[in-house]
Amino acid sequence: MGEVINSSIEGYKDLLKSFIETQDERSLYGVEMMSKSFLKNNILPEEIVDMHIQALEELYPELSQEVKHSMNFLLEAMISYGIKQQEIQSLKEKQF
Amino acid sequence: MGEVINSSIEGYKDLLKSFIETQDERSLYGVEMMSKSFLKNNILPEEIVDMHIQALEELYPELSQEVKHSMNFLLEAMISYGIKQQEIQSLKEKQF
Repeated sequence: MGEVINSSIEGYKDLLKSFIETQDERSLYGVEMMSKSFLKNNILPEEIVDMHIQALEELYPELSQEVKHSMNFLLEAMISYGIKQQEIQSLKEKQF
Repeated sequence: MGEVINSSIEGYKDLLKSFIETQDERSLYGVEMMSKSFLKNNILPEEIVDMHIQALEELYPELSQEVKHSMNFLLEAMISYGIKQQEIQSLKEKQF
């Protein structure tokens, strides 16, 4: 799981940069595909938020502390969803 | 579902403000509880991101366009997770 996330950060950051600059449909389509791939690889929602924070900090080193703190808060708001996803995954693995 | 989100925005915004200002454990515990309640009420991950954007814009009306665009991008990255959650919910409803 860690590997998928690590190898995705650069791609995510590039798409994010392109979307911020142009708000084009192509970047949105790209992130839609990426989202499907994350889910397929059992990446948790809070891991996506974490990757987003990392990408944002790399693109904007001057990012305000308020925004950084707020993103950590959002990450926390996703944790129940990650726990649920892991439970479902674990049930699936037991079934097959 | 819409009602749960609408009545939660103020609470979420207050907790977020408190966390940004103090980074205290109490706010993190609060959002952890809120996260469980959102999941129980079948709120989708992208709806949480959407609520986060709204709260952040209300707290910081001067929020940069870059951050706003980036949050819309993150929302898009969560959509597959929401679709999956709805599929699971729909299967559950068929079973009972």
